[in-house]
Amino acid sequence: MILIDVVNEIKKAESVILLTHVAPDGDAIGSVTGMYKVLKKMGKDVSAFIDDQLPEMYSFVPNVDKISRPFDKKADLVLIFDCADEERLGSSKEFLDKGPITVNIDHHISNTLYAKLNYVDTNAAATAEIAYQLVKLLGIDFDEEIATSFYTAILTDTGGFTYESTTSMTHHIAGDLINNGARFREVAEKVFNSLKFNKAKLLGKALNSLTLYKDGLVSYMEILKKDFEETGTDLSHLENIVSYGRNIEGVEVAVLLVEKEGEVKVSLRSKERVDVNKIASTFGGGGHVRASGCTIEGTIEEAKEKILKEVFKELEK
Amino acid sequence: MILIDVVNEIKKAESVILLTHVAPDGDAIGSVTGMYKVLKKMGKDVSAFIDDQLPEMYSFVPNVDKISRPFDKKADLVLIFDCADEERLGSSKEFLDKGPITVNIDHHISNTLYAKLNYVDTNAAATAEIAYQLVKLLGIDFDEEIATSFYTAILTDTGGFTYESTTSMTHHIAGDLINNGARFREVAEKVFNSLKFNKAKLLGKALNSLTLYKDGLVSYMEILKKDFEETGTDLSHLENIVSYGRNIEGVEVAVLLVEKEGEVKVSLRSKERVDVNKIASTFGGGGHVRASGCTIEGTIEEAKEKILKEVFKELEK
Repeated sequence: MILIDVVNEIKKAESVILLTHVAPDGDAIGSVTGMYKVLKKMGKDVSAFIDDQLPEMYSFVPNVDKISRPFDKKADLVLIFDCADEERLGSSKEFLDKGPITVNIDHHISNTLYAKLNYVDTNAAATAEIAYQLVKLLGIDFDEEIATSFYTAILTDTGGFTYESTTSMTHHIAGDLINNGARFREVAEKVFNSLKFNKAKLLGKALNSLTLYKDGLVSYMEILKKDFEETGTDLSHLENIVSYGRNIEGVEVAVLLVEKEGEVKVSLRSKERVDVNKIASTFGGGGHVRASGCTIEGTIEEAKEKILKEVFKELEK
Repeated sequence: MILIDVVNEIKKAESVILLTHVAPDGDAIGSVTGMYKVLKKMGKDVSAFIDDQLPEMYSFVPNVDKISRPFDKKADLVLIFDCADEERLGSSKEFLDKGPITVNIDHHISNTLYAKLNYVDTNAAATAEIAYQLVKLLGIDFDEEIATSFYTAILTDTGGFTYESTTSMTHHIAGDLINNGARFREVAEKVFNSLKFNKAKLLGKALNSLTLYKDGLVSYMEILKKDFEETGTDLSHLENIVSYGRNIEGVEVAVLLVEKEGEVKVSLRSKERVDVNKIASTFGGGGHVRASGCTIEGTIEEAKEKILKEVFKELEK
C-alpha cells in the first residue's frame, strides 16, 4: 500500500518540508506540528511552512512556533497534509515544482491528487488520523507533544467527536493519544471554552434581537453597525453566532442579518429539511444545504423583508 | 471478581427492578434505559423506577418511556445504577429493605456501599462504562437502542470526552457503541445543541450586563427580576449562563448575581487558581474549588459590592 511507500521516502530523506493549506484549521496545524516533532525525533532537517497567519486560538499547540511563512529552501521530500488542491497551498505551491518527491496526505473527497505520491483516505475523520498511522508505521514513539498536536487536529475536525465522519477508529486513536500524554483537557478548554469579551457582548446584542416567526420554525437575529461600534467588534467576530438561532428548539431555519454599508450580509442555517443553499442562490449567494450565505443590497429592513419572504416560501414546500 | 457475581445474580433472576438517583442526569437515565433493554432481551420481567421528574432534554433516549415513578412491586433482584448513597434514591430507597438481592453499581468515590453487592469503580468516567462491561460479560448483543442509551450516558458524564475522568477505555467503549449503531450525532445534537428560546433571551440579558474588573481577571454578570419577567424565564433557566463569564479569555473568576425577593443568589466559577468555595463559605454557601454558590441578603447593589470585595481579596493572595 502507498502508505508504506511514504514511509520509505521519509526514511530515505535527510531533509523534509512540511506544508498545509492557507487559512489553516486545527487539523492542518495539528498534523504539521505533530509530524514536525516526529521527523525531528528521527534526526531529519525539517521545515514547516504555511502561507498565512496562524489563528491565535492555536497558539497553545506544541511546536506551532516552528511553522513559518515559506522561504526559499531545498529538501529531499515535501510532505503536504490536509490540502485538497494545490491552489490552497498559496505561495507554498512552488515547492511542488522544485524537483523533490512530493507527497499529498489528505482526507478530503475533493482532493485533486496533485503530488507525485497521493494518499487520500476519505474515511479518516481528520488528516491527523492518517498521520497517526504513518507514525505507527515509522515505528516512532509518541510523546506528549505529538499526541497533543494530533489530538487537537482530531478534536477540531470532528467537532468534538460529534460529526458524521467520526468512527470507532477516531475514538481508538483519541484513546491512544490520551494514553500517550495528550493534554486533552487543555485542548478542549482552548478550542471550545474560549470566548473573547467583545465577542460575548456582540452575542448579547444579537440575542436581544432574536425573534421567532412561523410558530417558531424560523429564528431571526440582526446585528447593526452600531452593535459593532458599541462592542468594538467587526465581521471577524460573527463566527458561530448564527448557530444560536439554529439551536433553538423547534427552529428549522435560522436567519442572521448583518448591516454593512449600503448592503446586508445574510447567514442562513437549517436543521433538517429546508435547502438554504437554494434560498441563498436566489440572491446570488450559495453554500451548502444546511449552511449558506448571500449579500442583499439596501437597508436592513428591506433585506429582512426579502429574505424572510423567500424563507417562508421554501418552508411551505 | 464481583462483577461476575452480579452477572450470576442477573442470570438467576426472573424479575429485576432497576433504580437510580433522583434529579437523574444522562448517566443515570442512559444506564437504566440501556440495562432495561438488555434485560428485556434476556426475557426478564423488568421495571425501572426513578422517584423524580425526567428532564425533558432526555426524552429522546430509547426506552425512557419505560421508566416510571416507583410503585409497589416485588422482584428477585434490585439493580441500582449511578447512586452514591441510599438517600439519593428518594422513595425508591424502600426497595433496599424488601428482601431481594440488591446490587449497587456506581463510579462515585463517595459511594457508601449500601447494598448487598457493591461494585464501585472510580476509574470509570460514567456508570454506563461499568454497565457496558456487564453487558459484555452477560454475552448479550448490543443494539442501536442499548448503544444510544449508553453513549448518551458517557457523552454527558464526560462533558463530551473533555473531563479529566475520560480515559482511553472511555473512547474504546464510545467507538464500540458507534459500531453498534449508537445514534451519536442525534445525541450530541440533543445534548449540546439544544437551546430554549426564552433561555436564549435570558442569556442575551445576562451578556448585556457583562463587565470586567481587575484588568479582566474578574467577569461580572447580573440577572434582574425584570429580566426573568421580560423573557418568561425563572431560576430553572440559569444553567450554564455563568460559564459564559468563566470562558472569557483572561478571566480567572466569574461572578453571576441573580436578584430574588430580598436576597441575591450568587454563582461563582474560577479557572485555575482561586478557591471560590472559600469565597462562597464566607457568605454561608459552598460547593467546589472551581464552582460554588451562596445567597446574600439585601439588594443586588449591596450583594455586588460585598461579593466583589471578597473576590478581589482572594485574587490578591
